[in-house]
Amino acid sequence: MVTINKTAHPFDKSRLEALLNRRFFYAPAFEIYGGVAGLYDYGPPGSSLQANIIAEWRKHFIIQENMLELDTTCITPAPVFETSGHVARFADWMVKDTKTGDVLRADHLVKNVLEARLAGDREARGAAAQPPKEEDKKKRKKVAKSAAVKLDDAVVKEYEVTLAMLDNYSGPELGELCRLYSIKNPDTDNEVGEPQQFNLMFTSSIGPTGQHPGYLRPETAQGHFLNFSRLLDFNNGRVPFASAQIGRSFRNEISPRAGLLRVREFTMAEIEHYVDPLNKKHDRFYEVRDVTLTLLDRKVQSSGSTEVTRMTISEAVDKGIVANETLGYFIARIYLFLLKIGIDPQRLRFRQHMENEMAHYATDCWDAEIQNSTGWTECVGCADRAAYDLTVHSERTGHPLVVREALKEPIVTEKDVAEFNKKTVGKTFGKDSAALQKFVGELTEEELQKIKGELAQGSSVVSVDGKGFNLTPDLVTIDRKTFKQSIREYTPNVIEPSFGMGRILYTLLEHSYWSREQDLERGVLSLPPLVAPTKVLIVPLSAKDEFNPLIQEVSSKFRKAGVFSRVDDSNTSIGKRYARNDELGTPFGVTLDFASVANRTMTLRERDSTDQLIGPIDNVIATVTELVEGTIDWSEACRRLPAYDGVQAIE
Amino acid sequence: MVTINKTAHPFDKSRLEALLNRRFFYAPAFEIYGGVAGLYDYGPPGSSLQANIIAEWRKHFIIQENMLELDTTCITPAPVFETSGHVARFADWMVKDTKTGDVLRADHLVKNVLEARLAGDREARGAAAQPPKEEDKKKRKKVAKSAAVKLDDAVVKEYEVTLAMLDNYSGPELGELCRLYSIKNPDTDNEVGEPQQFNLMFTSSIGPTGQHPGYLRPETAQGHFLNFSRLLDFNNGRVPFASAQIGRSFRNEISPRAGLLRVREFTMAEIEHYVDPLNKKHDRFYEVRDVTLTLLDRKVQSSGSTEVTRMTISEAVDKGIVANETLGYFIARIYLFLLKIGIDPQRLRFRQHMENEMAHYATDCWDAEIQNSTGWTECVGCADRAAYDLTVHSERTGHPLVVREALKEPIVTEKDVAEFNKKTVGKTFGKDSAALQKFVGELTEEELQKIKGELAQGSSVVSVDGKGFNLTPDLVTIDRKTFKQSIREYTPNVIEPSFGMGRILYTLLEHSYWSREQDLERGVLSLPPLVAPTKVLIVPLSAKDEFNPLIQEVSSKFRKAGVFSRVDDSNTSIGKRYARNDELGTPFGVTLDFASVANRTMTLRERDSTDQLIGPIDNVIATVTELVEGTIDWSEACRRLPAYDGVQAIE
Repeated sequence: MVTINKTAHPFDKSRLEALLNRRFFYAPAFEIYGGVAGLYDYGPPGSSLQANIIAEWRKHFIIQENMLELDTTCITPAPVFETSGHVARFADWMVKDTKTGDVLRADHLVKNVLEARLAGDREARGAAAQPPKEEDKKKRKKVAKSAAVKLDDAVVKEYEVTLAMLDNYSGPELGELCRLYSIKNPDTDNEVGEPQQFNLMFTSSIGPTGQHPGYLRPETAQGHFLNFSRLLDFNNGRVPFASAQIGRSFRNEISPRAGLLRVREFTMAEIEHYVDPLNKKHDRFYEVRDVTLTLLDRKVQSSGSTEVTRMTISEAVDKGIVANETLGYFIARIYLFLLKIGIDPQRLRFRQHMENEMAHYATDCWDAEIQNSTGWTECVGCADRAAYDLTVHSERTGHPLVVREALKEPIVTEKDVAEFNKKTVGKTFGKDSAALQKFVGELTEEELQKIKGELAQGSSVVSVDGKGFNLTPDLVTIDRKTFKQSIREYTPNVIEPSFGMGRILYTLLEHSYWSREQDLERGVLSLPPLVAPTKVLIVPLSAKDEFNPLIQEVSSKFRKAGVFSRVDDSNTSIGKRYARNDELGTPFGVTLDFASVANRTMTLRERDSTDQLIGPIDNVIATVTELVEGTIDWSEACRRLPAYDGVQAIE
Repeated sequence: MVTINKTAHPFDKSRLEALLNRRFFYAPAFEIYGGVAGLYDYGPPGSSLQANIIAEWRKHFIIQENMLELDTTCITPAPVFETSGHVARFADWMVKDTKTGDVLRADHLVKNVLEARLAGDREARGAAAQPPKEEDKKKRKKVAKSAAVKLDDAVVKEYEVTLAMLDNYSGPELGELCRLYSIKNPDTDNEVGEPQQFNLMFTSSIGPTGQHPGYLRPETAQGHFLNFSRLLDFNNGRVPFASAQIGRSFRNEISPRAGLLRVREFTMAEIEHYVDPLNKKHDRFYEVRDVTLTLLDRKVQSSGSTEVTRMTISEAVDKGIVANETLGYFIARIYLFLLKIGIDPQRLRFRQHMENEMAHYATDCWDAEIQNSTGWTECVGCADRAAYDLTVHSERTGHPLVVREALKEPIVTEKDVAEFNKKTVGKTFGKDSAALQKFVGELTEEELQKIKGELAQGSSVVSVDGKGFNLTPDLVTIDRKTFKQSIREYTPNVIEPSFGMGRILYTLLEHSYWSREQDLERGVLSLPPLVAPTKVLIVPLSAKDEFNPLIQEVSSKFRKAGVFSRVDDSNTSIGKRYARNDELGTPFGVTLDFASVANRTMTLRERDSTDQLIGPIDNVIATVTELVEGTIDWSEACRRLPAYDGVQAIE
């Protein structure tokens, strides 16, 4: 087997982007109309890759854990998001260029400018000897101009602390930072105004009269919460359980420039796991307790550091770093999912939200951050939203969103209760009697006992809204009664893992991309077979008609085995066809040549190593099927099938 | 085997709706907020059913025919829909109640009122003897009040003709019909105003400045067309090929009241098949040529009739009833798909659009209409959109959306060409020379030959914008030259099959629903295993812990076999559990009892017949797997496994 060196060439983002564009993984939407920032279309390989990631997500989460799948609408009437708090708070801080009126996101501006200054400082200190490469210059220009200016040590430290805590600042604080550090719009060098809030929801109106304002949902979660009663009923009234949804969401980002990492329309996959607030243990926690994770907790960040810690999830839960077992269970499951689809574990960490960063109602929140050429990017959020959402929707609509649980042992309590003689009270106090009874009904145990004592003495005077009422035993009696509670009613808490599919897909592409050692121009996407758009390429060596029955046979056998194949019978050399499919991430290729027609054999090529094996057609198909299903790896395939050393001009 | 009588009870829509609501197939979105007309959420069984229909669609169309899948955005900048014609024309005619201002769709109003009058007439003529049932009354009220009033024979005929041609009327014509037939708002009995156009697209705006108006797409098609060049390139420049997309679309319906049949947000699946306008034959037409369809062509409808014809698709194409082979191929493939997922072929017809109904650019258009309790509903459209879309987008953007095809035989032509002597022309005519050369370059062959003749005589005068130029042989020579054209450039035509998934799903539910002969209350959804939300229910007869390993084993074996199962270990009787799953459309059930633990046997129940078989666990799993994959049917299963006659109290 050939040794593969995937790091012979440093990662080159512009080459990857050219590949993704050339092979139509995705492209700016409405490109021929000049495009719209933050909107992208997925072409055939991008669509397949996304569909395969989603299919695996469905298996890993929905099927494995018997979650209840939902498909709710994107268009949402305004009252829902008024209640959820999105109308008031789902906003980013933006600043305007004081001269051009250009709009920038305030936190991104601070980040870009400070990072550029730190880069300039590093250049001035060390790398000053080497002049910056032409391509480095270009790259930097897109972000923020960086001049090789040395900074004071104290300033460097200050900038670093500010950047570590960036997600913690409010809008006015970001404005303060702009003034303090003289931060200007790097595109124009003009000053920027005070940060203002900009709501990120797209607005629309529903119906022909224009009277019903609505929004496009910025997350799928509310669709779960509003259906909670129906879901609980579907689950035979039992808790815990989870609902899951894969669907579109929309955010009117202020100034999206980061490709698939910041878009205005995207596919999310969200889970809402409903759990008893008094018991956040998880039945299957034992399955994941030894999973070791890279954690960046809140305390470390607040101290201005970004140093990570490695520990098992059970240790993190035991130490109280992760708030509870259920949250920990999902964090570990998210980790396992990301690894399965091909994310590099060395470039994956879980970062805890800081106090000010977290929604006010949340108990704890961890983001799965994946490192890529732009830094660490949040790709999955995992929050304990407590009972917030169900409570606010229930209060607004009057529809109870609660669990009613039969208690094994009923709770028996005793307390004093006032009982009025309706007739005499009505006669004595007329229209005031209702208010009086309500008032007495809401008194504390202690107050009631005081009145009880006074009644035993003859009478008691109570004052309702400044008006006195003289109570006597013929009007009211206060007696001790026994109460038996056999149902416990509670609002469940919600643990929410929320996945941004586009971000995961893009970071996976970065992690999968490399160039062949011998040829920088030959890019490869080492996507795992599980998610690769096409699993196997069928390459007929000749366009002659006599190959057709064999192509048909092999295609149809792969289809029956559930392995997605494509035939490439284009008029180019076999080398070009394989190079094209290395770029498309196709893990295996089989070649049909004249020997195949004569002997019913077929060669099998592996993408990363370009190793070739040979064997009878049916054996090769069986081997590929196992490789794709992940029951064997390539070294096992090499044991099963002999190597093929027929020299092909192209490898 | 028990004989099953699925038609013992007449179809009862309100029972079906109660079932779908109770089992959370779908429910009004934002129900606890009072709901919004035309927006629905799918619950767990509805989501699964939809996902299974989509998965089969993907196999039947995308994989079988190697289509290129896309995933494009819903948010669309305004210029795209200005070009496509949607801003000007994607509208329905609405009328306003002159007193209340209520808005009604004009064609629906005419249809409802005339149909109600015809129903009243039928009642007065025949059924007058039998008083209408209470439930009939209720039903009718929702549509339009119908009084048992006999109409003249001529009026009945006139109404029928009007209804048959309803899709052919323009807005002003609908207004004319309202006046002619004194049609009022049936809810209020008030007159309605003149029909006005209402655009059905939801509007929004993109970005923080509000300067970029956008729409939510009402179809996915434009996303295909805008990416045509990339798709063609991905397909190595070859035509024909097809792109396919499954995604959300949005239509701001005027007054949706028909459940899933008319909604404001829905999932579509669209194919755009690009074909040479000079050759609309289809390679695989032979595979479908004998498929026999029920057709309702344009001529029959224009004559005021709705009488259908049965014929094979090849006959329909040969006779010119269906415009071309490719259109015919897709019509037949649509038919086969609908049958596969369980649509009743007796209640499926293909209706051709009438002249005025069709988009002005379309060559031919056929709707797959499925009969249901509301009548015949368009569920799939199949149109030949000609070159319209690609042409208009190309003209607007200047980006060529064409196919360039190498000709096998270059076309060689000869023609006269004028060649100017640049130097002398420039000297003689100065700044006019450019206009002169352009003018001469655009002359016809005939005109050029006239000048050529005159030049041979010495000189020729041409007049450009009223100015005369005297041409002589030293300024210009006209010679015969040979041209060789080796590339043919053309705009492909587009055949578009377009599927409304929600409508297909709802009509399938109607076609699948029946009540057991012995008990009207016991509803069954006879969904085919292919699309059923859950394929097999695992029913442990006891909640004892000793069952757990077996439940785990059976679940995991089904999972490995790719058969989606669910365990129902709820505390109710086995009969109730099966009844619940009959309502959910679960085709098979296996029961684990004490004999299973002791002997490793399991019973297998079939939903429709309630027949039960018994066998070793692994045999039962293998049999169910084949039943679900469709390689055997129930009668074959009965041959493989012995019948189980253990009497269970519940069947």
